[in-house]
Amino acid sequence: MDHFFDTICAPATSVGSGAVSLIRISGPEALSVVDRVVRFRAGTAAESPGYSLKFGEIAGLDEVLVSLFRAPHSYTGEDAAEICCHASPFIVSSLLDKLTEAGCRLAEPGEFTRRAFINGKMDLAQAEAVADVIAASSAAQHRVAMNQLRGGYSAELRDLRKQLLELTALMELELDFSEEEVEFADRSRLRGLLDTACSHCRQLAESFRLGNAIRNGVPVAIVGAPNSGKSTLLNALLRDDRAIVSDVPGTTRDTVEETCVIDGVLFRFIDTAGIRASEDEVERLGIERTFRKISEAEIVLGVIDATDAQEAVDKAVEMITGKVDQTHQKLILLANKIDLRSGDVSQFSPSSSFAGLTGESPAFPISAKTGQGLDELRSALVARAGVAFVSGTLVTNARHAAALRAAADSLRTVSDGLDRGLPNDLLAEDLRSALASLGTITGEITTDEVLGEIFSRFCIGK
Amino acid sequence: MDHFFDTICAPATSVGSGAVSLIRISGPEALSVVDRVVRFRAGTAAESPGYSLKFGEIAGLDEVLVSLFRAPHSYTGEDAAEICCHASPFIVSSLLDKLTEAGCRLAEPGEFTRRAFINGKMDLAQAEAVADVIAASSAAQHRVAMNQLRGGYSAELRDLRKQLLELTALMELELDFSEEEVEFADRSRLRGLLDTACSHCRQLAESFRLGNAIRNGVPVAIVGAPNSGKSTLLNALLRDDRAIVSDVPGTTRDTVEETCVIDGVLFRFIDTAGIRASEDEVERLGIERTFRKISEAEIVLGVIDATDAQEAVDKAVEMITGKVDQTHQKLILLANKIDLRSGDVSQFSPSSSFAGLTGESPAFPISAKTGQGLDELRSALVARAGVAFVSGTLVTNARHAAALRAAADSLRTVSDGLDRGLPNDLLAEDLRSALASLGTITGEITTDEVLGEIFSRFCIGK
Repeated sequence: MDHFFDTICAPATSVGSGAVSLIRISGPEALSVVDRVVRFRAGTAAESPGYSLKFGEIAGLDEVLVSLFRAPHSYTGEDAAEICCHASPFIVSSLLDKLTEAGCRLAEPGEFTRRAFINGKMDLAQAEAVADVIAASSAAQHRVAMNQLRGGYSAELRDLRKQLLELTALMELELDFSEEEVEFADRSRLRGLLDTACSHCRQLAESFRLGNAIRNGVPVAIVGAPNSGKSTLLNALLRDDRAIVSDVPGTTRDTVEETCVIDGVLFRFIDTAGIRASEDEVERLGIERTFRKISEAEIVLGVIDATDAQEAVDKAVEMITGKVDQTHQKLILLANKIDLRSGDVSQFSPSSSFAGLTGESPAFPISAKTGQGLDELRSALVARAGVAFVSGTLVTNARHAAALRAAADSLRTVSDGLDRGLPNDLLAEDLRSALASLGTITGEITTDEVLGEIFSRFCIGK
Repeated sequence: MDHFFDTICAPATSVGSGAVSLIRISGPEALSVVDRVVRFRAGTAAESPGYSLKFGEIAGLDEVLVSLFRAPHSYTGEDAAEICCHASPFIVSSLLDKLTEAGCRLAEPGEFTRRAFINGKMDLAQAEAVADVIAASSAAQHRVAMNQLRGGYSAELRDLRKQLLELTALMELELDFSEEEVEFADRSRLRGLLDTACSHCRQLAESFRLGNAIRNGVPVAIVGAPNSGKSTLLNALLRDDRAIVSDVPGTTRDTVEETCVIDGVLFRFIDTAGIRASEDEVERLGIERTFRKISEAEIVLGVIDATDAQEAVDKAVEMITGKVDQTHQKLILLANKIDLRSGDVSQFSPSSSFAGLTGESPAFPISAKTGQGLDELRSALVARAGVAFVSGTLVTNARHAAALRAAADSLRTVSDGLDRGLPNDLLAEDLRSALASLGTITGEITTDEVLGEIFSRFCIGK
């Protein structure tokens, strides 16, 4: 840990329009730098208590409001200040000049949060959540990121680590006394703890699929025959005009991805090339890409042209269902262009084979062009996404998911080793590896802690 | 004055990138609204003193830092709060929702400053300066706007109004006692006060030319024969590529305006069509526009092709100087393409007629293409602009300039009336009109004040 930080400054608000800008300062010299730059009506920053607010003047530049914080009660854990000035690019750049002249260094990206981590104000997972909270654009994203920022996820990892540390401590204690051939650890208890921890790691790692869907958007592929209205549907869902729409079959050759928030859930819509046999090389590549995109989606919207003859409808349904992995993916069939179909639209139903494939639910009658049925489709999407009201911890970070999978693998190895009667020192090695993997998530330094755990719990005094 | 305000809220920082966002709340319910939305660890906003800073939580949304202010010690003069949250668009919009649910109304543009004006925290001229301070992109713009914001300009207007009020009070007192045929006001003293006030108004109104140049940029026209390198020069000064540059004479048919800051001064460069006799209708219109633009400029950069023969140079100089109003405009002649001229460049000098026209200074030898001589040109521009170190009050606002001109005109009428021996009530009318004009600048309510001035100074008790 490096306690010998310099003092840094940076704008904390975006420079653009707006009434005020906030400049953040942190480090051992933060308060004296403020006194060098700002003249207060009474008193100085250096003699002010933490959590105080002072009105002052920067000669020839601006009148400012300064918030003062004292270590460790600040975001970074250091002495810190926030100067609130008028939001003029001229003032902000002049003020930064004055602060650097007074001894500050311009902060690097994320440096305030890095200091907060190093000063123990938050762990690594929480520090990572800060960026997620700021980037959140849907209620679900925000909820998951806030849980992580507020330490809910870290607490769960801490529990997990605690169990593993207990196991490791028991095993390492045995090692210390190995000449005396003492077997401290109860093997069946060991196995129970191991299996619980292992399945917990796996479960967290698996939550990444959902967590990632929430963070980056639930991937929804829109597929169907050429000219079935996929792009029109995408535009209707997004309510703008990014994809190219035309009446010529095969217009959308590349895939188009767009995100939008429906009822607090972020969706990532993937418009795809129409599926059909094609001689055109470029179009064929587009169709291949469609197949790959379909395999990555959580939900597949299969668009059928309701104005087609029954035979064509059945063929389209067969083509779409053939490409969907029904065990991992959710298919929603849509009977599009229902506004152009004569007769009672609510009666639209594909043939028996179609009904069989979609289970109890027939195709949704919609019109991407008139908007008919789209509200029902939106509700169905939110319901199928299954993320709107998820509670508990979700892993949203690929690094964490990888670490959790590595930890689970190490624990599996320990478990196998126990079965094969491997010696404790080998088992302890894999346990330490699992701990190290978990430790990378919250940024703890594993070896020191393992030792600390042993001595604090056993007080052997050796 | 309307004291029965509701409570308003709005983001005070631009929503974009950035670490934090600031939401401003002002009005009688500001502190209790904060308590409805934010849960503090200890105490409430309503029981906190002004100028305090509290850390709190918005359930399920964010952890925030709240600055609290009590009337009248806030920007608006009302109870107020600023909530500093994470800069996520989701958090900002959710927080605004919560605040409106808790009884706030979303503020209209400028409403906080409008309240500051109505609550007497600043006058109208200062309120107008807030926008100028925020928009300032050069040091000179900023200095003028800050002087206005900090009330330097208002104080000057106040002095002026005070003189006029004294005059008016004297005249109105005479009116009240007119049956008694008393002449209170000393006519020669009246005339002295009038002339001083009138010339002060004119002087301020005239400072608008300079003030406007500072606020909107010093207009600099770049003129010269076709293909003399005007666009290349503009690009070199701007260091980017917005104007079309080509070797075909007459490329820049429309005028191009670009601003840039040199040594703290904002310049507005006007690239113009080449001046020459042309058969082409469109080009002829461009040249006409050039002449108009030249007349609006403070400084004219006359570009001469130094590779031309002496005869062509002399002709170009004559054409340029013929279009410049040498009493109001400053001409800087530039000998461009000096890099292409063989021989000693420092010896470049136009013929005697040229030297005579430019007075003691010969043409600046430059190369817009290589950058040679451009630093010297920049220094010359700043020196000629004459705004870099301007002190005293400058009017930067067209509304103010118009009001000052109107006031001066009214005062002139009073002065003429005095000469012609017009009765006091007619003179007083024009004086009140001058006061009303000045009053529109700072937003004072004139008639109430005139009465107030009379009664407070004379204490007649009538």
